[in-house]
Amino acid sequence: MKSSSKIIKSADQGWNGVEPKKYKTEGSNFKSISRYSLLDDETSELNSHTRYFEIEPDGYSSLEMHRHPHSVVVLKGSGSVILDDQISEIDTHDVIYIAPEAIHQFQADRGEILGFLCIVDRYRDKPVIPSDDFIHANIKSEKVLKKIRK
Amino acid sequence: MKSSSKIIKSADQGWNGVEPKKYKTEGSNFKSISRYSLLDDETSELNSHTRYFEIEPDGYSSLEMHRHPHSVVVLKGSGSVILDDQISEIDTHDVIYIAPEAIHQFQADRGEILGFLCIVDRYRDKPVIPSDDFIHANIKSEKVLKKIRK
Repeated sequence: MKSSSKIIKSADQGWNGVEPKKYKTEGSNFKSISRYSLLDDETSELNSHTRYFEIEPDGYSSLEMHRHPHSVVVLKGSGSVILDDQISEIDTHDVIYIAPEAIHQFQADRGEILGFLCIVDRYRDKPVIPSDDFIHANIKSEKVLKKIRK
Repeated sequence: MKSSSKIIKSADQGWNGVEPKKYKTEGSNFKSISRYSLLDDETSELNSHTRYFEIEPDGYSSLEMHRHPHSVVVLKGSGSVILDDQISEIDTHDVIYIAPEAIHQFQADRGEILGFLCIVDRYRDKPVIPSDDFIHANIKSEKVLKKIRK
């Protein structure tokens, strides 16, 4: 079915008519994170989906990896991101490219929320949670190993 | 060549290392608009490109149409968008889906800049500028016809 043009109005919390969803339906390797599906399968013409994730202070996304890349733009607040052997502080409007197979995790570790858009291919592989052995084989930075949260 | 993960830091004006480009290399049916290519062909794994457009007060994008859809998120300021027979005010963090073939134009008509992300397929058709005849055959709203800028 053909989709019509539409406007999704921003609200004080999230967007009008967009219910925050569970970040993931299984697993427990994340904390205080909500997911807003802004443009998804309902808009059948789109080859990419635009989602918004909001992490409350001290929360974090799961440490994960997958073949599809991520295009990320921080919309609100600040925090940090682990990208393989690097930890970087990220602030509002920073853009992050997460390459295929990069081990990554977002953390709201700076006393603020961290809210970001994450654009992905419509057809994509499922994230994989790396095992401890895999993490230690691929991440050499002690600083990153200490920073990872599970 | 495989791209590495990367972070593009936001700056007071735009982003570090991202030069604002001309909005379009030809035509004159737009005003006071800059284009920042945030994630593009340089990142060869991406099937979608993320660009940022900033329109100064009283500026506007070209009135155009094309087969590829747009996913738009307003990052800064406010303005209006024409989508076929509708004019809508848009504000920071609003999300706009522009359907294939929709006639559309962004205007910074509310005394502020209008800055927005626009996500498109990597492989896409070129925009077409509709003729006056086409506009009048497809847009019936007098309000929209008066609002269009060229």
